[in-house]
Amino acid sequence: MPAIKPERLLNDLKRLRRFGAQGVGVVRLSLSPIDIESRHWLVERMNEAGLEAAIDGVGTVFGRSRKNGPALLIGSHTDTQPTGGWLDGAMGVIYGLEIARALAESKETRHLPIDVASWIDEEGTFAGYLGSRSFVGDSVDGAIRTAKNREGRRLKDALKAAGLAGQPRASFEKGRHVAYLEPHIEQGGRLEAAGKSIGVVTTIVGIRELRLRFTGQRNHAGTTPMSIRRDAGAALVAFVGLLDSEFRKLADADTVWTVGRIELDPGSLSVVPGKAEMYLQFRDANPKRLQAMEAKLADLVRTVNAAGTMRISLETFDEAVEPVTMDAGLQDHIASAAEAIAPGQWIRMPSGAGHDAQVIASCMPSCMLFVPSIGGVSHDFIEDTAEEHIVLGCQVAAAAAASILLDRHARAPAVLNR
Amino acid sequence: MPAIKPERLLNDLKRLRRFGAQGVGVVRLSLSPIDIESRHWLVERMNEAGLEAAIDGVGTVFGRSRKNGPALLIGSHTDTQPTGGWLDGAMGVIYGLEIARALAESKETRHLPIDVASWIDEEGTFAGYLGSRSFVGDSVDGAIRTAKNREGRRLKDALKAAGLAGQPRASFEKGRHVAYLEPHIEQGGRLEAAGKSIGVVTTIVGIRELRLRFTGQRNHAGTTPMSIRRDAGAALVAFVGLLDSEFRKLADADTVWTVGRIELDPGSLSVVPGKAEMYLQFRDANPKRLQAMEAKLADLVRTVNAAGTMRISLETFDEAVEPVTMDAGLQDHIASAAEAIAPGQWIRMPSGAGHDAQVIASCMPSCMLFVPSIGGVSHDFIEDTAEEHIVLGCQVAAAAAASILLDRHARAPAVLNR
Repeated sequence: MPAIKPERLLNDLKRLRRFGAQGVGVVRLSLSPIDIESRHWLVERMNEAGLEAAIDGVGTVFGRSRKNGPALLIGSHTDTQPTGGWLDGAMGVIYGLEIARALAESKETRHLPIDVASWIDEEGTFAGYLGSRSFVGDSVDGAIRTAKNREGRRLKDALKAAGLAGQPRASFEKGRHVAYLEPHIEQGGRLEAAGKSIGVVTTIVGIRELRLRFTGQRNHAGTTPMSIRRDAGAALVAFVGLLDSEFRKLADADTVWTVGRIELDPGSLSVVPGKAEMYLQFRDANPKRLQAMEAKLADLVRTVNAAGTMRISLETFDEAVEPVTMDAGLQDHIASAAEAIAPGQWIRMPSGAGHDAQVIASCMPSCMLFVPSIGGVSHDFIEDTAEEHIVLGCQVAAAAAASILLDRHARAPAVLNR
Repeated sequence: MPAIKPERLLNDLKRLRRFGAQGVGVVRLSLSPIDIESRHWLVERMNEAGLEAAIDGVGTVFGRSRKNGPALLIGSHTDTQPTGGWLDGAMGVIYGLEIARALAESKETRHLPIDVASWIDEEGTFAGYLGSRSFVGDSVDGAIRTAKNREGRRLKDALKAAGLAGQPRASFEKGRHVAYLEPHIEQGGRLEAAGKSIGVVTTIVGIRELRLRFTGQRNHAGTTPMSIRRDAGAALVAFVGLLDSEFRKLADADTVWTVGRIELDPGSLSVVPGKAEMYLQFRDANPKRLQAMEAKLADLVRTVNAAGTMRISLETFDEAVEPVTMDAGLQDHIASAAEAIAPGQWIRMPSGAGHDAQVIASCMPSCMLFVPSIGGVSHDFIEDTAEEHIVLGCQVAAAAAASILLDRHARAPAVLNR
């Protein structure tokens, strides 16, 4: 069995952290100068590990194994949120690097090919999941032409400045990969609450994002009796209460819904709001439940509109994201590895956050492994994971990687023998 | 009985409208150059009407009768909201001017003294009710030193630019006035809905303005299960629902409460709000009911805080305004005048909006008369009142003014004869 080197793993993670470090946090936005610098460092580390690495035409770092036979692709992302943590994405990439090294160092696994990827812009500084989308063959040319970051910098210009414009883009090659494995921090508090160390991801949830606009009648808050008001703010509040109780009936323990923003117009204490706006997001692993929630929402909107005193318009705020199921066989490999190394210390769980794995899953069997986030915190400078969990996660991922590849090599001859 | 001249009344109203006219609306903010211009015009019109008029040291136009004996003070304000209507305030001042003229023209009333005031800054461009507060002896020196308008202009500098700094200020003189009468547009839709022409104001409601801040825990909206969330936005929405049902139990038909502003932090779709803020205003004519509502609110806050997962802080946002009862005898004078001129066309009603009368009431018996607002609209360019209602309101106010003064003159000798 492959033996990862905890010191080497942690040193590389800490080395990567220095690119864009701000206190304990990291600011390493996609294609920023410091991000590009870190990518060159990563290429070097991959090359040292025996891979053939390069930054591709959108910024993804892709390290190809020089070994024969179908490889396991391990990856995640090394870009961060505007005020990000040191592990979100970065950990999975450095796991890949360490696993490539560890497998090469063990007699039983040294023939097993590992490719490693750091997909560009998972966090959406310019265009979310840009690297993985480009890899699976989604058209990203439009995004490259038009996408801008918050400062108004064009993606096109950022690629040009980094010397990447026109470079070849890493893309899916039929037969090259057995599967995709993405190790990641949980970004939630479930493993911690359950006292477990490893999460085997069953599904990456689907997402709906909607905007609801309420139109009533703006009025003087002193001279307009309650009985004749058409208060858009009060209608919104009542609607959220109703929606909440209806969603509770449809939900299971993993269903989540959030009203993240509310705005009342004109926003004055002495004026009955004539307009009100709310932004609703809901997530679930089950596409049927997402549909049922959408239908219930539309139904509630229709009921209010039919009553006639308040007008609600319901709009899609962002494109629907469908749930993606992780490959069952791959889940079992991770679960077996976890049970062997840390018996009873793992659970199966959905991923409430989005990941490159949901994109890569469209072209190959994919899986994810989670390690606990301290306090459930991520997308924040203070994001962290206990070192023992970082090390354990990499050991489990390495064992799972070996097991996935050995299984495939064992099955291939069996097929030939028939 | 005095006979007002509708043509003259409407002409003066339309003449005043031209100062700051924007389409059908008016922009005549306190102490702006156009406001000062209009005040000089008003002084001239008052002098032509036989009054002794001047702009005082804060900007109030005060016209003193030259006649003997205690006078009836009629007034309102001629400043407007940033995008105001032509009647809010202006109508009451021109009523005063017309009533002074009309009484002087009738044999039975020519001896009756009428003072007329246009109180500065009722709308609070610099400091709300500045003119009436200065008149009743409230200290306004602090406001004069520190108050600024939205553009950052100091009240002090505005007074200086208008040549008013250091001028004498109109102030309450014991024995000079019988009473204060403020005619005004309703600014609500009640008279229109009831098909009535005159409102006899019973009370000017009291106001409470509060800010509630909810503190929960900010979290990832995808990875944080509903069961462990401390969503400040959801808590706010639930609280408003509860407050609403509790206030309904305490309210009568005239009680109003409004949540005019809600803010969720950080306001992102993918983040469970960790903080939320709401601004609550409520108004009622009954001080005991206001206290009961305050107590209920505090009680609900305590209950939530005691539960421990959410922290609500409750703060006074603006000073409490206590309800002010209009003088019962004066109400009867207006009611009798209305019944004589427009039988069955009047009702008694509270004022949901604030007025200078609530300030002046602290030093003399005060009363208000309302005329209908078309569509209940005010503080808007399209604010309007039917001409027949404007005229009728002035006829009733003139009759009430004569009746108030004649009654006083009749009672005074009776006292002397004892």
